[in-house]
Amino acid sequence: MPQALKKLGKQTVAFAEPPSILGYASVTGKKESEGPLKRTFDLIYDDTTCGESSWEKSESRMMKDALARAITKSNIPNEKLDVIFAGDLLNQCIGTTFGLRESGIPFYGLYGACSTMAESLSLAAMSVDGGFSSYAAALTSSHFCSAERQYRTPLEYGGQRTPTAQWTVTGSGAAIVGTGGIGPYVTHAATGKIIDAGIKDVSHMGAAMAPAAYETISAFFADTGITPDQLDLIVTGDLGSIGREIVADLFSRDGIKLGKRYNDCGLMIFDLEKQKEVVAGGSGCGCSAVVLCGHILNEMRAGAWNSVLFCGTGALLSPVSSAQGESVPAICHAVRISNTKG
Amino acid sequence: MPQALKKLGKQTVAFAEPPSILGYASVTGKKESEGPLKRTFDLIYDDTTCGESSWEKSESRMMKDALARAITKSNIPNEKLDVIFAGDLLNQCIGTTFGLRESGIPFYGLYGACSTMAESLSLAAMSVDGGFSSYAAALTSSHFCSAERQYRTPLEYGGQRTPTAQWTVTGSGAAIVGTGGIGPYVTHAATGKIIDAGIKDVSHMGAAMAPAAYETISAFFADTGITPDQLDLIVTGDLGSIGREIVADLFSRDGIKLGKRYNDCGLMIFDLEKQKEVVAGGSGCGCSAVVLCGHILNEMRAGAWNSVLFCGTGALLSPVSSAQGESVPAICHAVRISNTKG
Repeated sequence: MPQALKKLGKQTVAFAEPPSILGYASVTGKKESEGPLKRTFDLIYDDTTCGESSWEKSESRMMKDALARAITKSNIPNEKLDVIFAGDLLNQCIGTTFGLRESGIPFYGLYGACSTMAESLSLAAMSVDGGFSSYAAALTSSHFCSAERQYRTPLEYGGQRTPTAQWTVTGSGAAIVGTGGIGPYVTHAATGKIIDAGIKDVSHMGAAMAPAAYETISAFFADTGITPDQLDLIVTGDLGSIGREIVADLFSRDGIKLGKRYNDCGLMIFDLEKQKEVVAGGSGCGCSAVVLCGHILNEMRAGAWNSVLFCGTGALLSPVSSAQGESVPAICHAVRISNTKG
Repeated sequence: MPQALKKLGKQTVAFAEPPSILGYASVTGKKESEGPLKRTFDLIYDDTTCGESSWEKSESRMMKDALARAITKSNIPNEKLDVIFAGDLLNQCIGTTFGLRESGIPFYGLYGACSTMAESLSLAAMSVDGGFSSYAAALTSSHFCSAERQYRTPLEYGGQRTPTAQWTVTGSGAAIVGTGGIGPYVTHAATGKIIDAGIKDVSHMGAAMAPAAYETISAFFADTGITPDQLDLIVTGDLGSIGREIVADLFSRDGIKLGKRYNDCGLMIFDLEKQKEVVAGGSGCGCSAVVLCGHILNEMRAGAWNSVLFCGTGALLSPVSSAQGESVPAICHAVRISNTKG
């Protein structure tokens, strides 16, 4: 028998039997451990080479570590993991490929830029709820040094950062979802559309991605009937200080005050007052991944937050598209996580 | 209620209510139209710029065309399409992003290199069978000129090709799967694992990917109990002449003769005798996409083939990983397509 349609409205899916987040883990570099979330990370590399011979291999190492720790914390044996959904920012996603090369686990590669944690969690939850797997992993990574080299200028340049720039997080986060378990549960997934606000400044990613976040979050509210005050936390991926302000402003024009329940992973991971060099906040696939797979899920398990809308935001540009004069298209995928199945 | 587990064995999913392929379309360049499959393409660009100002934009144009034609041929209105699964070979998948930017349809970005057509079709079928969408699109693209620039040397070099080299297909293929319809049906999806055979020659992709194809196809046989003689066609993504021979050889060591029912999209799309410059055959995401979304599905609809195992093979390297001395990991996702639901 076909499954009854679980789609609500235009963009949101409500899971029939919300999969449980059975385990999760985060791995970061030194700078991330100097921010306010240090105690929430499972493993910190003070040497961000992670003992590897290239930055790309360092990133793969963190992904391998995050997955292994998330599996262990899930209390499932390795061989029970049915499928992995993962991707990263590097050309051809080599952080992921080489990080998972020895895993021996069926794998679907994703490219969602910095929305990847939400994209992978959405698809992992669909895999479980659809009956295609019992246990599925969602993970992603980024590394400051591999990203700077690929997207911007060699580190040795020491280029000045613009006032709207963000800092790529060195880290990897992984979550295992499955049947059974006691939550937190993935209850809904809202799939993003590509939104292009026409921004061409590649150091102004918050502004480029904010309209995509606004679009997906608005769709989630419209599709589900859930209102902002029914959520304890609405958290975007890595819009930083400027993008966060734009999202709040776009909602206030609709008469919706998101207020203090709205935050951004790029602001949570660093202390912007003390860590001035991060400028407008953290970014990179690893940013929202390590904040979710540490602080946010910890607080949910502790009961501080019961209902969270986690919104991964990604900028879908490449250095080539920018060189060809293109603007920066963006996407936001959102996942609603709750301590109850409803 | 949770859906009953549809997983068979280690890697294969059997759909409860196999989604139907409602429509499909293929768009190619001139060289592809000079091969034996010309009549199966929906749109051929004799000028492979496709009227655009860069090769990347030409690729996006083909993807847009393929999606629009597949939707039209599906007889569903644009706004009924719930979700798109797509990706390509370009850094940060900009072929896809810019090709789908104006679509306004919820979108999950994939990176599976040349396995993308099978990966996207697998996930689109899961989306429908799991109850997450009524209509889902699967598509991908590649362009000879954008791929050569990114992976190899500038075209103006005129570099000599090695005897094992393959030729990146300029093309895009798209398929729409959904509930209802009269088939062909997607009955099974086998998810690949990353397999690294240790090949470091980036002009020897067939050899790098063949072991991944062997692994996934073997898993499909073991998981489902379906035997090769129950299939009218087993077709790999783009292994070319050398990779195809390796796969046949690996199976013959297991006492399994694939024989004439086994073919490869990279061999089907070009006439290797006449089109000598393609050397070992076609490659690129677009290769298996346009062969599936043209010739193969046409023949199935005509009843020439009733049961097909379509196996997309991807090499998960990047120029950076190769420069760092790494070998070429590969993956193969397989989809079984049948004129009956069983």
